[in-house]
Amino acid sequence: MKLLTDLVLAGFDAPTPYGRIEAGVLVLEGDAIAFSGARSDLPDRYADLTPISLGGRLVTPGLIDCHTHLVYGGSRAHEFEMRQSGASYADIAKAGGGIVSTVAATRKASEEALIEQALPRLDRLIADGVTTLEIKSGYGLDRDTELKQLRVARRLGQLRAVRVVTSFLGAHAIPKGMEADAYIDTVCIPTLKEAAAEGLVDMVDGFVESIAFNPAQIARVFDVAVELGLPVKLHAEQLSDQGGAALAARFGAKSVEHLEYVRDEEVRALAQAGSVAVMLPGAFYFLKEIQKPPIDSFRRAGVPLAVSTDSNPGSSPMTSLLLAMNMAATLFGLTPEEALRGVTVNAARALGQNRLGRLAEGYLADFAVWDVTDPAELTYRMGDAPLHARYLGGELC
Amino acid sequence: MKLLTDLVLAGFDAPTPYGRIEAGVLVLEGDAIAFSGARSDLPDRYADLTPISLGGRLVTPGLIDCHTHLVYGGSRAHEFEMRQSGASYADIAKAGGGIVSTVAATRKASEEALIEQALPRLDRLIADGVTTLEIKSGYGLDRDTELKQLRVARRLGQLRAVRVVTSFLGAHAIPKGMEADAYIDTVCIPTLKEAAAEGLVDMVDGFVESIAFNPAQIARVFDVAVELGLPVKLHAEQLSDQGGAALAARFGAKSVEHLEYVRDEEVRALAQAGSVAVMLPGAFYFLKEIQKPPIDSFRRAGVPLAVSTDSNPGSSPMTSLLLAMNMAATLFGLTPEEALRGVTVNAARALGQNRLGRLAEGYLADFAVWDVTDPAELTYRMGDAPLHARYLGGELC
Ligand SMILES: [Zn+2]
Ligand SMILES: [Zn+2]
Repeated sequence: MKLLTDLVLAGFDAPTPYGRIEAGVLVLEGDAIAFSGARSDLPDRYADLTPISLGGRLVTPGLIDCHTHLVYGGSRAHEFEMRQSGASYADIAKAGGGIVSTVAATRKASEEALIEQALPRLDRLIADGVTTLEIKSGYGLDRDTELKQLRVARRLGQLRAVRVVTSFLGAHAIPKGMEADAYIDTVCIPTLKEAAAEGLVDMVDGFVESIAFNPAQIARVFDVAVELGLPVKLHAEQLSDQGGAALAARFGAKSVEHLEYVRDEEVRALAQAGSVAVMLPGAFYFLKEIQKPPIDSFRRAGVPLAVSTDSNPGSSPMTSLLLAMNMAATLFGLTPEEALRGVTVNAARALGQNRLGRLAEGYLADFAVWDVTDPAELTYRMGDAPLHARYLGGELC
Repeated sequence: MKLLTDLVLAGFDAPTPYGRIEAGVLVLEGDAIAFSGARSDLPDRYADLTPISLGGRLVTPGLIDCHTHLVYGGSRAHEFEMRQSGASYADIAKAGGGIVSTVAATRKASEEALIEQALPRLDRLIADGVTTLEIKSGYGLDRDTELKQLRVARRLGQLRAVRVVTSFLGAHAIPKGMEADAYIDTVCIPTLKEAAAEGLVDMVDGFVESIAFNPAQIARVFDVAVELGLPVKLHAEQLSDQGGAALAARFGAKSVEHLEYVRDEEVRALAQAGSVAVMLPGAFYFLKEIQKPPIDSFRRAGVPLAVSTDSNPGSSPMTSLLLAMNMAATLFGLTPEEALRGVTVNAARALGQNRLGRLAEGYLADFAVWDVTDPAELTYRMGDAPLHARYLGGELC
């Protein structure tokens, strides 16, 4: 057992903003939290533990990046350069750019090469205090590569002190030379079943959009997820309203992502389904979008908001969750408290992780210690990462 | 002498974009560059040096952050939280927020305290490959504090392996309880003279804006700068057009900053004066501004563009120059080549440093080695800092 004292708690476990407690203490037992609260409320049975001072620092739950495409081959920096220099999408496609280029590079790369390319991105997220992240497949669009991406995601969780939740995203894009329906039925679904049988899949994701799949196609994938007992989530209403949110709500999705074009009626459906709305301001910013997700509607309807990097080479080459928090505030109007809740409490909920995201008795002892005292600093700063230490399952790492 | 080989040069010293040379070499002699170019062009006299391989990595000039307010007391995170929670400027002012709060905290802080608060910000910039930065006064608005800020700026340059250029910015804001003219004549100008006599001032800056000073007031400060033989620069046309750019051009300013509201006629004057236009997209983003600086006008007129963090607590709490490059591209439309030129060649010019910003014979050997090969990666990525090593004056640091 460990007694950590002399810390400001922002553990989302008290009836104050951030669950803030100025003179806080934490008691760790094994990999979990035995007590979290005010020093003055510390039960007598812990009073004899030797206190470890955290020097007055802020302690928050370990950050959770609940939506990443971290594992991929190649880079799209050259494509970015072409775009900034005035090239059209047609020019870029002709030069071999777009998601096709990432799919080709990911197919070609060995598992080792994918690990080597993903590790610096993972290390950058870890330096932001991330203790759990989700990683999706979806750049294979064929059996072997989808499985390879998921295996790499699992390996990353072994190579670093971080928890990885995997999502199968076979239904990310239509591969060249195939019809959408044929791809869903003859590649995507069989691969999902195989990946699940190998224990590679924690959640099932999809992309409903005019440039991807329609709700009926995704529903077939989700039906299989239900059979397999896997929770679902969905990319929806990013560029237009295609009815994705309604579909997700019908399947009781843990989360729905992007949602710039969601309608009020669908927001109510998400609220009823208990789905989390995941805000991805990095993609909004990088794609120079104009339509923002309807934050006030989510608030009114009581839809929990999460915030994530959407780390990916095409629309959000971002590897800082703190920067995503700043963008969620600056671009979408979240408060710093909502932004921090969005990468802790609500991000855990988006991943169906009910022992993560809070510093409360019985929760896993994943937390970040910061060289600041005010939790608003984490959202306010741009391009900083004032991390002092990170604990995973009660261990300093 | 040192011979560095096996590197991609982006030294802005060849007739290619970025001055890019794929199989590049650098020869360092003392603190300067003796040769920079293609391996195949290496003069015979250097052929016997033992080559040090950089493993195929990209080498750029050390980055230069030419506009920072890095030294200040306190934090404005709480003010940010109030603003995001719907507080008006009046509410914030009533709660003691705004620049007044930074001035009060800076006046109160000891030199040691200011150093301690600035060092983590400086270290963050250094982690981005910064080898030179400018630091302004301007949060004192009284004799003692302005001098204190400049002394701290000089000390920071001794405490870290980085070059610091100081700017006297007494004419930053009107202190509470004084008239602008009286402040300029009885505080600002005498303090400038005293600071210059102490060797604390490299450049003289000012702020022309409806909420700050008018051109006639700044002209009186610039007249003194001319007497003292100090180059000038100016914050102008950030929130409205007040004729600041024309004034700056008249004084042959090294640079003019912000410029969102500059008119075409003033752009031509800047071109004729040889002034650099410094883009500060962090402030534009953080203040949720809408009017962008006229990039195309600058290009057409041949005004060199620099990019900087404007690191400050009120309008740009940013400590990543790479993030400023990404924002200059994403928000203002710069190409990655313009963004990198803006933190090297053109940033050096903005600071009047004619041996910095390029990797060319006779230039100081300040450079950054990156874990990438394509210079566009530096602008493309969001929240990353793929720095491998930094050299200052020929020394690894
Ligand atoms: Zn995504
Ligand atoms: Zn400034």
